[in-house]
Amino acid sequence: MIFKAEHLKEYLRRILQNAGLSETDGGTVADSLVGANLRGVDSHGVTRLSIYVKRLKLGVVNPKPNIRVVAESDATLLIDGDDGMGQVVGKRAMELGMEKARRNGAVYIGVKKSTHFGTGAYFVQQGVKENLITYAMSNAPSTMAPWGGIQPYIGTNPYAFGIPARKYNPIILDMATSVVARGKIITAAQEGKPIPEGWAIDKEGRPTTDAQSALEGSVLPFGGPKGYAISLMIDIMSGVLTGAGFGPHINNIYGDYDKPQNVGHFFQLIDISRFMPVDLFKQRVDQMIEEIKSSPKAAGVNEIFVPGEIEYNIERKRLAEGIPLTREVYEDIKQVGEACGVHIEDFQDKSIGA
Amino acid sequence: MIFKAEHLKEYLRRILQNAGLSETDGGTVADSLVGANLRGVDSHGVTRLSIYVKRLKLGVVNPKPNIRVVAESDATLLIDGDDGMGQVVGKRAMELGMEKARRNGAVYIGVKKSTHFGTGAYFVQQGVKENLITYAMSNAPSTMAPWGGIQPYIGTNPYAFGIPARKYNPIILDMATSVVARGKIITAAQEGKPIPEGWAIDKEGRPTTDAQSALEGSVLPFGGPKGYAISLMIDIMSGVLTGAGFGPHINNIYGDYDKPQNVGHFFQLIDISRFMPVDLFKQRVDQMIEEIKSSPKAAGVNEIFVPGEIEYNIERKRLAEGIPLTREVYEDIKQVGEACGVHIEDFQDKSIGA
Repeated sequence: MIFKAEHLKEYLRRILQNAGLSETDGGTVADSLVGANLRGVDSHGVTRLSIYVKRLKLGVVNPKPNIRVVAESDATLLIDGDDGMGQVVGKRAMELGMEKARRNGAVYIGVKKSTHFGTGAYFVQQGVKENLITYAMSNAPSTMAPWGGIQPYIGTNPYAFGIPARKYNPIILDMATSVVARGKIITAAQEGKPIPEGWAIDKEGRPTTDAQSALEGSVLPFGGPKGYAISLMIDIMSGVLTGAGFGPHINNIYGDYDKPQNVGHFFQLIDISRFMPVDLFKQRVDQMIEEIKSSPKAAGVNEIFVPGEIEYNIERKRLAEGIPLTREVYEDIKQVGEACGVHIEDFQDKSIGA
Repeated sequence: MIFKAEHLKEYLRRILQNAGLSETDGGTVADSLVGANLRGVDSHGVTRLSIYVKRLKLGVVNPKPNIRVVAESDATLLIDGDDGMGQVVGKRAMELGMEKARRNGAVYIGVKKSTHFGTGAYFVQQGVKENLITYAMSNAPSTMAPWGGIQPYIGTNPYAFGIPARKYNPIILDMATSVVARGKIITAAQEGKPIPEGWAIDKEGRPTTDAQSALEGSVLPFGGPKGYAISLMIDIMSGVLTGAGFGPHINNIYGDYDKPQNVGHFFQLIDISRFMPVDLFKQRVDQMIEEIKSSPKAAGVNEIFVPGEIEYNIERKRLAEGIPLTREVYEDIKQVGEACGVHIEDFQDKSIGA
């Protein structure tokens, strides 16, 4: 099934409104999810709709949160998300933060009492548009053991940043701090396929290529103990410092159906013009991009990409040709719509075809 | 050879003073180098003395820099290091930054026109003592190819952060963004030994276990493309944003003897009390440390360590028993001293023994 991004967004927005969100907030969550599909990050796209709606209906996510600043200084903000949707809470935090960064030069923003915020890239893109260097991090339910351990303690805590350029698209990194997203291991287990060594350990801490044993065990951090330490840092900034949950004290989006998640986020915004003229900075970033892309390539490499470039290429294609959904995802979101009285057929563009 | 830390520091300080530094600044550089030895990070210890003194004598490092703030906002500082020693420039940047962070809540500090700053941990320790969450990054001469490339573009740009705890030592990470320090490959080449696969590629971009081919090629980033992206980010913050050199436009400490390095640094300081009471934060960090350390261990693991813990253990031992130097390093620093009329024998404590 292929959808135009705008149609898919409108379909999601209507469902989310039906689940209690305002039109604006429904649009925000729809933008984030469809935006992920546009960039080819389907694991964080519309496939998340059903769990979002489920938690809204169960009352463990607040559709109309009172998002408020609970502590503030010239260079910091602490925000209470009132258990609202992560995208809605994060977007509000970014708005408040962008204002402060423009006024005071930069800001660090902590967020507590939030939920799964989708992709970090969604927020980073907002900041970069305003010529702010932007970082977005979040903690997540525990799936990774501490280095040397076997029992999950920290999450695959995502780390994202964005750097504006002039002639080129911004440099945008958005990554999990695990070797791979846990979703890939779930898929392998469902299909009865093995996983490469280095992705996960079993519940005894042994390297495993069996997807099922991996799910019962622990995902491995990227880059061994160094990646583990960065994931831990994200949990400290997002969870420990903000007053949100941390480590195993974050509730699972796919399991703890009787309580809010209490996820924490951490954003950093820096006004480039406080360091050098924005145009000069962008010229320097362009120079860096050009030097990297024209660097001699290893055998078998056709092109050297900067972070985010591959996603921009996919986005351009999907904006023109539409977003392909697997039959499984299509049926899943169709069902969510039906339960809300919103019919997916009304949003399909027959001109794109099935 | 075993030295008491205090004696070694005094020996270095005298030599650095002879090379033109003030007593205070000489003490700062000595503190950083001997501090690295104390923590077991011998690659960044007194072994760097000879190149530091050489560059001072060549006049490409400024012994009496006029370190000044060239741009400032409520939440940012940009500092020109006037080609001074990285430790001296970084310490002054930290002092100015700590004052601002205490006053305004937090700060981002960019530094240009600096040189090799030793270990990031040295600065992080300063901030953590003042109950500031502290980050220290620096760019470095190019030794790593872009992902997919074969020609060095970015450095093994170090990333360090520190988190204060209450009952325990602070959590301190200080890492290179390469798989291993290039120094280990140099040592292997000198000893004619192979290196493990995954450390480096040769000049054609092929994986290599030959240390010499590795040195002619490129060091690999930790964690593949993810670690590469983080190293790139450090170069953007430390180099592109500050106006320092970036990518291959940073001069080599061990080669470009006719010009300053133009290294850039980036520091981040956050006043914990703007988010929650410091004592509550430290209690939460303690809880995290306790939960991690009491987590079930993998087979063959005796103890789970948090970042920096192993270094604190070594420091405790070396403070009590002295710092062991290899014959090679001893002869090297002895020679540097002789050339300055400072005799290492005067600083050896016979009670510790040879």
